[in-house]
Amino acid sequence: MAQHDRPGVAVVGATGYTGAELLRLLLGHGGVAVTALFAQTKLAARASQVLPSLTGLCELPIERFDPDAVAARASVAFCALPHGASIEAVTALRARGVKVFDLSADFRLRDPAVYATWYGAPHGATALLNDAVYGLAELNRARLRGAELVAVPGCYPTASTLPLLPLLAGGLARPETVIVHALSGVSGAGRTPGASYHFPECSEGARNYKVAGTHRHTPEIEQTLSTVLGRPVTVSFTPTLVPMTRGILSTSYVDAPEGLTAAQLVEAARDYFKDSPSVSVLDPGALPDTLWVRGSNRAHVAYAVDPRAQKIVSMCAIDNLVKGAAGQAVQCMNLALGFDEGRGLHGAAMFP
Amino acid sequence: MAQHDRPGVAVVGATGYTGAELLRLLLGHGGVAVTALFAQTKLAARASQVLPSLTGLCELPIERFDPDAVAARASVAFCALPHGASIEAVTALRARGVKVFDLSADFRLRDPAVYATWYGAPHGATALLNDAVYGLAELNRARLRGAELVAVPGCYPTASTLPLLPLLAGGLARPETVIVHALSGVSGAGRTPGASYHFPECSEGARNYKVAGTHRHTPEIEQTLSTVLGRPVTVSFTPTLVPMTRGILSTSYVDAPEGLTAAQLVEAARDYFKDSPSVSVLDPGALPDTLWVRGSNRAHVAYAVDPRAQKIVSMCAIDNLVKGAAGQAVQCMNLALGFDEGRGLHGAAMFP
Amino acid sequence: MAQHDRPGVAVVGATGYTGAELLRLLLGHGGVAVTALFAQTKLAARASQVLPSLTGLCELPIERFDPDAVAARASVAFCALPHGASIEAVTALRARGVKVFDLSADFRLRDPAVYATWYGAPHGATALLNDAVYGLAELNRARLRGAELVAVPGCYPTASTLPLLPLLAGGLARPETVIVHALSGVSGAGRTPGASYHFPECSEGARNYKVAGTHRHTPEIEQTLSTVLGRPVTVSFTPTLVPMTRGILSTSYVDAPEGLTAAQLVEAARDYFKDSPSVSVLDPGALPDTLWVRGSNRAHVAYAVDPRAQKIVSMCAIDNLVKGAAGQAVQCMNLALGFDEGRGLHGAAMFP
Amino acid sequence: MAQHDRPGVAVVGATGYTGAELLRLLLGHGGVAVTALFAQTKLAARASQVLPSLTGLCELPIERFDPDAVAARASVAFCALPHGASIEAVTALRARGVKVFDLSADFRLRDPAVYATWYGAPHGATALLNDAVYGLAELNRARLRGAELVAVPGCYPTASTLPLLPLLAGGLARPETVIVHALSGVSGAGRTPGASYHFPECSEGARNYKVAGTHRHTPEIEQTLSTVLGRPVTVSFTPTLVPMTRGILSTSYVDAPEGLTAAQLVEAARDYFKDSPSVSVLDPGALPDTLWVRGSNRAHVAYAVDPRAQKIVSMCAIDNLVKGAAGQAVQCMNLALGFDEGRGLHGAAMFP
Repeated sequence: MAQHDRPGVAVVGATGYTGAELLRLLLGHGGVAVTALFAQTKLAARASQVLPSLTGLCELPIERFDPDAVAARASVAFCALPHGASIEAVTALRARGVKVFDLSADFRLRDPAVYATWYGAPHGATALLNDAVYGLAELNRARLRGAELVAVPGCYPTASTLPLLPLLAGGLARPETVIVHALSGVSGAGRTPGASYHFPECSEGARNYKVAGTHRHTPEIEQTLSTVLGRPVTVSFTPTLVPMTRGILSTSYVDAPEGLTAAQLVEAARDYFKDSPSVSVLDPGALPDTLWVRGSNRAHVAYAVDPRAQKIVSMCAIDNLVKGAAGQAVQCMNLALGFDEGRGLHGAAMFP
Repeated sequence: MAQHDRPGVAVVGATGYTGAELLRLLLGHGGVAVTALFAQTKLAARASQVLPSLTGLCELPIERFDPDAVAARASVAFCALPHGASIEAVTALRARGVKVFDLSADFRLRDPAVYATWYGAPHGATALLNDAVYGLAELNRARLRGAELVAVPGCYPTASTLPLLPLLAGGLARPETVIVHALSGVSGAGRTPGASYHFPECSEGARNYKVAGTHRHTPEIEQTLSTVLGRPVTVSFTPTLVPMTRGILSTSYVDAPEGLTAAQLVEAARDYFKDSPSVSVLDPGALPDTLWVRGSNRAHVAYAVDPRAQKIVSMCAIDNLVKGAAGQAVQCMNLALGFDEGRGLHGAAMFP
Repeated sequence: MAQHDRPGVAVVGATGYTGAELLRLLLGHGGVAVTALFAQTKLAARASQVLPSLTGLCELPIERFDPDAVAARASVAFCALPHGASIEAVTALRARGVKVFDLSADFRLRDPAVYATWYGAPHGATALLNDAVYGLAELNRARLRGAELVAVPGCYPTASTLPLLPLLAGGLARPETVIVHALSGVSGAGRTPGASYHFPECSEGARNYKVAGTHRHTPEIEQTLSTVLGRPVTVSFTPTLVPMTRGILSTSYVDAPEGLTAAQLVEAARDYFKDSPSVSVLDPGALPDTLWVRGSNRAHVAYAVDPRAQKIVSMCAIDNLVKGAAGQAVQCMNLALGFDEGRGLHGAAMFP
Repeated sequence: MAQHDRPGVAVVGATGYTGAELLRLLLGHGGVAVTALFAQTKLAARASQVLPSLTGLCELPIERFDPDAVAARASVAFCALPHGASIEAVTALRARGVKVFDLSADFRLRDPAVYATWYGAPHGATALLNDAVYGLAELNRARLRGAELVAVPGCYPTASTLPLLPLLAGGLARPETVIVHALSGVSGAGRTPGASYHFPECSEGARNYKVAGTHRHTPEIEQTLSTVLGRPVTVSFTPTLVPMTRGILSTSYVDAPEGLTAAQLVEAARDYFKDSPSVSVLDPGALPDTLWVRGSNRAHVAYAVDPRAQKIVSMCAIDNLVKGAAGQAVQCMNLALGFDEGRGLHGAAMFP
């Protein structure tokens, strides 16, 4: 496909880590052309001045966000703006007919009341909310085809729900409560420096934060699990910051039906994920490692059964910036625009 | 106290990380004199050749272990040998009247049948097992006074059980099942290099191992919790290796009685730990960080209640090599020999 | 190009870090087909069993190296074997007409006597040595076109010589002695675990090794610099191991002619490297960072002049496994087989 | 010594990393009593609220700096304030008779003109400058006894000059130019978060900064070396930030006289440092590692001679926050107040 025939793509919020990763993936995609970059801060003459990893590879200017400028140069936009800021930007872009893949939390929760409870303000675009498709391809593949507004899932919800989908969809477990303990690398906190992310205070530090049902990804996880199971599921979610840059490792605990084996879970999950270009279910006994998926759009899923405590232990490792953000967004775009679902996403993880 | 009046102390297994930490603490203790060092491998002319951190501070030779040599030069021995190897060494030392603080798992499980199940061989010194006091000072302070054989707890069991002791002892929770998810730094795996601990494959890697009731610390945790509660407790224990050198962060989940608050838990725990020189219970809302206890014998304990899922979330951070090993052993020695319990253990953590 | 029309490529030594990186790059190249994998150790039924980053992406078996098996299935081989082991393997492959890109040091030094001095054994294939082209594309681009045996440069020599090439070639400096101080990540030491690379003893440790003219890359650096300058140059080379997985940062010091400015050096270097798809010369004042090139085949080169000490300070950052090994090998293959020099190598660095 | 007989010590600038380390060391010193803590920011009700490593160990309030308050409660003050801010504070404290150990750069450079050139403003207390003793005990031991104002050396100058002192003092080398390449951990940049120290952009990043004679420690290094040699020495100094929290590793290059051996250098250095409680000169062939001195006040010094390039390669590893700051300040206090020079500083490094 010649450069000028490709759909033009804009990245809005291009100067953060998700923006950097979107650019890395989109520049290698081949089916689209990155035509414009926008941001709210760190405006710069050239992309490589704020993202030196692009030196010699992308010299587009970083412009102040303007929906008309986006619409003039692109038919597709990825929005990687902070929560709250996205509602207005997405509304403006959709009004101009731009297809939007939104990486914020603003269009993920279907119920505006739940949004208001967890994000502290009423949702300002409830009409658009109905148009948004939740962009977990492994759950919503069919609905993502042709979608014009996609709410790309959060990193924790992706890693937390993926291994549970086959269990709940297949009736292998029917929990009322799920405990999810998930570790994240520091890039999940974004590019803005802060005391908690200062190298000397992150290195050698493992710490929980927003424990006991206070993290905003809790209702997003519950929404997905409840949808699949067909009745409400309560999640007790604990996020832990660990001293690495990328990666999420989720471990969840649900009651195991008598006699269930890890092999049965692996078989069911392999069947469930058979159409996904991104999910691998590990052999029974193998356990995922964030290092093995770093830089790739892959999710490694694994299962164990604790026969003494009668618990299913489900695990998933992803790169929070790829399958947990930019890569998943490209996967959604591929489905929405009619590309092969895995296009531009087949790269192996960077090991080590 | 003059040098020659102090009890002579030998370190058996002086060349690993626990040995290094024992030496760091014992050299600064003031009440004992380190008189001899032994090992099974890495024998060297001088301690500083295998532990360069001791250059200029300790030039004792590293000798091949021999119980007569220990007894000739020391009245107290710390044994930091691998599991299994300790039974024979401890038996020989006790036969010669040497007081022993054993850091292996060999004398921790009271029931020889449980030992045989989890360690794959019958226990070779069941008589001695009855003499051994489990060295969790916060649980067994009185019994440790004057003890002659102490089984120093494992690192995971220390971090996992400490925050639960006040809950179970005080009847604030009466669980049948406890989920414990604990993260460990890599030094917990010891000093022997291996593929799993090779820097390039640890850095940026978070991974579970020995999940679903297969880790040998499971019965040790269950033994303590069951003793305190007065009836059997089953633990589903998940250890995670994270890319840091030191530290354990444990998080446990138990069902919460209606109406229980974090403030109540904090109050009960502060009362429970009031005699310990090593445990601090954080204010409600504050959460522990392994960085804050690194290099010290301190445990930071915290509590939260998840009202949606009705769970108590208990947390504890320790340095696995100090409160999880060498420091706890010195704390036991202090009690056994009649020193102030915190002697030589008051040093603040190294921050950052 | 259809899969069956592509040249078949074998990777010999596929289970180490360079092998992993070769596979990552070759699987995404598009112009060649990876047809066979060989190793001497870690033989496994499937590649993903030793390189889990390839799970779902490459299920070729890992076979024991056999030159006939290579020749039967591939016209091109990448050899990532240890120094010494490569001479025999390369000789066998060349005898069977296979084009070889050798990543060991065995064919880099033109003078067999120098090889014997530094590698402790006579070179066993001196005839082949004359056929080998030193694979620094920025130096030997023309000679690499159509080459059938390429000695891919070492990681330290690549980072150490690249920034000096324009200076020496352009007569901007005419040193007799060059001081090169270079930092390397731990992956440069390979995948075999060892005490020096054990996570707890690497993290927080920076240490020099093989200082004062004892590192084997010294003669390779001197060979390149002397060739370009046209007379012997002596190098005092210091390698430092720092706690990161990937990356080399070289800094070199040479006497500065009176009045020379960094701007002049930047201009000369940009002209020198104008045909390279991989080298970017940073603006005066900007300084390279290994993080900015990680995972990419890019070299970031920078210059400063110290007017007080009258020294040129030249710097270069590369990823040791990419531009310092696997990527550079692919760059050589592209030239040798007539592909665009940067094919498969345009990926941006993974940031962060 | 009873608590009330000990000299009262105040820490001014108690909330940063140097302050934390001063408190860790002073609380364990035994000969002084920490009586008051001051800061300009992060004022808090209790020390442990800004330094959680002190939880349960130090509950003094953090007060806004006021020289009268200091003088009322302490006869000794450690000032760990930013450069520039220290001049005024030290002047006020000296006017009230408080003995001051100043960890800023404000009293290190003897020549006010040099200060003005490098720090961009005239020195505001040139009279006091004459009273200040440069606190490198290994150079100025005699002058530090009884000193009332001590300028504690910078971290880079300590690591850079220590190994060169015996060479220059003993006439073993007589350089006009010295190249010093020094690596630092991130804690050297202080506790204020910034983009350059954000975990995701530090981890895996090695980068030079302030190269080619622009770093402010350059004149401090030159001052010491010129004093010892008796004539001006020019230093080309390169600092490199590497992804670790603590540690400085310096490597310096000077021309070697014909025939000089590493063994001669080691012998001379051991003689030079024989009175220091903090410096160990490693055996020829052994090389220092920042990990081996972490948390301790020790400097590991080593030498090599490169016979091909005819260079002496001198090396030194210290902990930047201890021998490079807080520990060195305590060492100075010990000399000034008549304590044993190593009091409170004998702790072994934390390994690993």
